[in-house]
Amino acid sequence: MTFEWGDLFAGRISGMAASEIRELLKLIDRPEIISFAGGIPDPDLFPSAAMARAYEKIFQSNAGAGGALQYTISEGYTPLREWILGYMEGKGVRLGLDEVLVTSGSQQALDFIGKLLIGPGDLVAVTKPTYLGALQAFSPYEPRYVSIAMDDEGPVLADLEAALAARPKFLYLVPDFQNPNGVTVSADRREAIVALCAAAGVAIVEDAAYAELRYDGEALPSLAAIDAARNGGRPATVIHCGSFSKTVVPALRVGWVSAPRDVVNRLVLMKQAADLHTSTINQMVLHDVVSQIFEPHVKRLRVAYKERRDAMLAALDAHMPKGVTWTRPQGGMFVWIELAPGRCGVALLERAIKEANVAFVPGAAFFADRSGANTLRLSFSATKPDRIREGVRRIAGLLETVEA
Amino acid sequence: MTFEWGDLFAGRISGMAASEIRELLKLIDRPEIISFAGGIPDPDLFPSAAMARAYEKIFQSNAGAGGALQYTISEGYTPLREWILGYMEGKGVRLGLDEVLVTSGSQQALDFIGKLLIGPGDLVAVTKPTYLGALQAFSPYEPRYVSIAMDDEGPVLADLEAALAARPKFLYLVPDFQNPNGVTVSADRREAIVALCAAAGVAIVEDAAYAELRYDGEALPSLAAIDAARNGGRPATVIHCGSFSKTVVPALRVGWVSAPRDVVNRLVLMKQAADLHTSTINQMVLHDVVSQIFEPHVKRLRVAYKERRDAMLAALDAHMPKGVTWTRPQGGMFVWIELAPGRCGVALLERAIKEANVAFVPGAAFFADRSGANTLRLSFSATKPDRIREGVRRIAGLLETVEA
Repeated sequence: MTFEWGDLFAGRISGMAASEIRELLKLIDRPEIISFAGGIPDPDLFPSAAMARAYEKIFQSNAGAGGALQYTISEGYTPLREWILGYMEGKGVRLGLDEVLVTSGSQQALDFIGKLLIGPGDLVAVTKPTYLGALQAFSPYEPRYVSIAMDDEGPVLADLEAALAARPKFLYLVPDFQNPNGVTVSADRREAIVALCAAAGVAIVEDAAYAELRYDGEALPSLAAIDAARNGGRPATVIHCGSFSKTVVPALRVGWVSAPRDVVNRLVLMKQAADLHTSTINQMVLHDVVSQIFEPHVKRLRVAYKERRDAMLAALDAHMPKGVTWTRPQGGMFVWIELAPGRCGVALLERAIKEANVAFVPGAAFFADRSGANTLRLSFSATKPDRIREGVRRIAGLLETVEA
Repeated sequence: MTFEWGDLFAGRISGMAASEIRELLKLIDRPEIISFAGGIPDPDLFPSAAMARAYEKIFQSNAGAGGALQYTISEGYTPLREWILGYMEGKGVRLGLDEVLVTSGSQQALDFIGKLLIGPGDLVAVTKPTYLGALQAFSPYEPRYVSIAMDDEGPVLADLEAALAARPKFLYLVPDFQNPNGVTVSADRREAIVALCAAAGVAIVEDAAYAELRYDGEALPSLAAIDAARNGGRPATVIHCGSFSKTVVPALRVGWVSAPRDVVNRLVLMKQAADLHTSTINQMVLHDVVSQIFEPHVKRLRVAYKERRDAMLAALDAHMPKGVTWTRPQGGMFVWIELAPGRCGVALLERAIKEANVAFVPGAAFFADRSGANTLRLSFSATKPDRIREGVRRIAGLLETVEA
C-alpha cells in the first residue's frame, strides 16, 4: 500500500462517532434482552397482508411489473405524491405536485436539507435534546449548533429568541412526541415559533415522523399548517418532512419532504445526484397500502402503542426511586428519564446490559452541546406490556443499587 | 414571506444544472418516440417470475415478513453481503464482511465517496467523456476536475501521468463499456493505471456497473482485482462500486461498494446519516434472485443486448454519412457518435425530437471540461432491433440534411 487512506479523507465525518443507537440496535436480536433501545415499530403490527396483496397485484400484470421494476423519475411516483398532496391538504397545507419530493425515509430529507442549506460554520438551531439522526445528517456539512432549552410545552421562547438573534440558517424541530424526549410543542408555542422564525428570516425544518401516533388529546396544527395559514394556504418558510416508517413499515424506506417550489426543485437535483430515485416498486406498494388502509391501520397502531405507553408510565410510577423524573408523552414511542444530577446514563447502560439484560439509549447522544449525561431514552413501541413492566422494574432495581 | 430562500442556500448545487438525462427520460413515455436516450435496461428482460416468487416466499412466513419490513443494519443484509463476497472472490478480490457496504444503487456509492474524499477545491481526475451521474454526485462537494483524454484502449497514459502530477484525490473510471462512450480499458492499460495511481498516492474509484454485460472477447480483470493481486488478494488502493441495476433490475435500488475496512467503516457511518439503510425487503428479494438465477439470467441478457448492439452498428455502417465516426463497444449499453467538428449535438437533438421522433443524449453533458459539443450518446439496450434500425436511419437522415 502506497498511501494512507486517512490522508485522503476530507474530514467531513470527524465529528461522526459510531452511533450508540446503531450499536445498540444490534442488541435487539439477543432474545434475553428486554430492549427499550431502538425507536422501532412492532413488526407484529405491520400491515403484512395488505402489502402481500399489493406485491401480488403488481406481478399479476406484465406491464405493471415492468414499470415497477424500472428506473423512474427522481421526484417520486406520481400517484404517491398525489396521495401526499391530499393528506397534506387535509392538514391545511395546499401544495403543487412540484412541491413534494419522495425520499428514502425522512432521514434522507434531513441529509438533503443539510446539503442544501448548511455551509461550513453556518449556525443551525436545535432543541436540547434533539433527534440524534438529524445531528448525524447535518454534521457532515459542518454546521455549528445553537441549542435551545425545552420545557413541557416545547422550546423555551426566551432561548429561541436568543438563538434567532445569532442568525441560524434554520431551526430543526420535532413538534410531536419528540424523539427522544416525548415532548409535544403546545398550540400557542407553535404559533409563536413560526412567527418568531419568519420575522427573523430563519427557515424551519419540521420533522413530523411521529405526528400520527397520538394517544391522548387533540391533534395540533403542524408548523407547516401554521405557516400556510399565514400565507393563503401555501408553504412559505417551513420545510416539512414526513415518513411512512412509523405509520406503515420502515423497510420500504419511503418518506417525503414538502416545501415551496424553489426548495423542492433543488432537493430533486440532490435526489438525482444522491441515488437517482427511491425504489419504484416500494413507492407503488406503499401507495396501494396507504390508499386502502391508512386511517384504520393508524387507529390500530394507536390502540396498541397507547397500551404500552400506559404500561411504561404505570411501571415507572410504581418502581422508580426518588430523584428520578420522566416525561408523560401524549403519543409517539419514547419516555425520557432524568436521573439525579451527577448520575451517568452510559454507565447505567453498561450495568443494565451486563447485570439485568435490559437496554435503552443514554440521553447524552441527543444533545448537540454534549450535556444531558444523566438522561435516558426508553422506547415502549416494540415491547409488549408485561415485558415493559419487567424491564422498567429491572432498571429501577439497578438505580436502587446505585443509590444505596 | 419574510425571507428569500435563495439567501439561505449554501451554494453546493450552483453547478448542478437540471440534467439532460433526467429531462430526456421523460420522453421515453411518448410511444411515437424511438428513444436511444435513457441508459436503461429492457423491462421485457426483467426476471419478474423469480422476483414474484421471492416476494411470495417472504410473505408466506410471518417471521420473514416481519424481518423484511423492519429497520435493519446500515451495512446491509448479511446474506447479500456474503453473496457479494463470493462474487468478488470469484473475480480475484478477497474481502471481509466489513469491507462491503450495500448502497441504494451504485449512484449512492458515488455520492458517499464524494462526501468522504472531496473537500472544496480538491482535484478529481476523470476521463473525457465520463459518466454524467458521477459528475453530479461529486460536484456538490465542490471539487475541481482534471480531464484525461481517451483512446480505444482507455485513458491516454501521458494524460494520466500529467493529471497525477497535479495530485488529485482519486481517479474515477468506468473500465468496462464506459457510459457514455462504450470504450473498454485494455488489459495492459489497466495494469499501468493501477501501478501509476498507487505510485502517485492517488486512490481509484472503479465503477463496474456494466462489467457483466460483455458480448465479445474475454472478460478482463477489474481494477480491484489488479489492486488485490498486487496486495496478496486484498483491497488496497481501489474503491470498487458494483450494481444490480443492469444485471437484475434498477427499481430495487441495490448496489454495493467494496474497499479496505478503513474506507468502508466511514462509508457505513455516511449511510446511516444519509438514509439509515437500503430497503430491507429489496435486499432480501435481490439476494434470493441472484442466489437462484444470476448466471443464467445474465447470459440471457447478453444474448438479447448483443443482437441490439449488432443491429445498431450495422445500421450506423449502412446509413451514416461521411465525417461521422462511432465506437464499436464490446458490451454495455452505449455507442458513442462523433459528428464533424463544429456540429452541435444539442441542436441535432432538438431537430431529432421535432422532425424525426427520435431521441438520444448530446455528449457535452459527459465532459467535465465542457468540450464534446459534437458528440452523441446512443443507447441500444431498451430498443428492439428493427426500431434501432429505423431510429438510426432517421438520425442519419437529419445529418444528411444538415450536411446538405
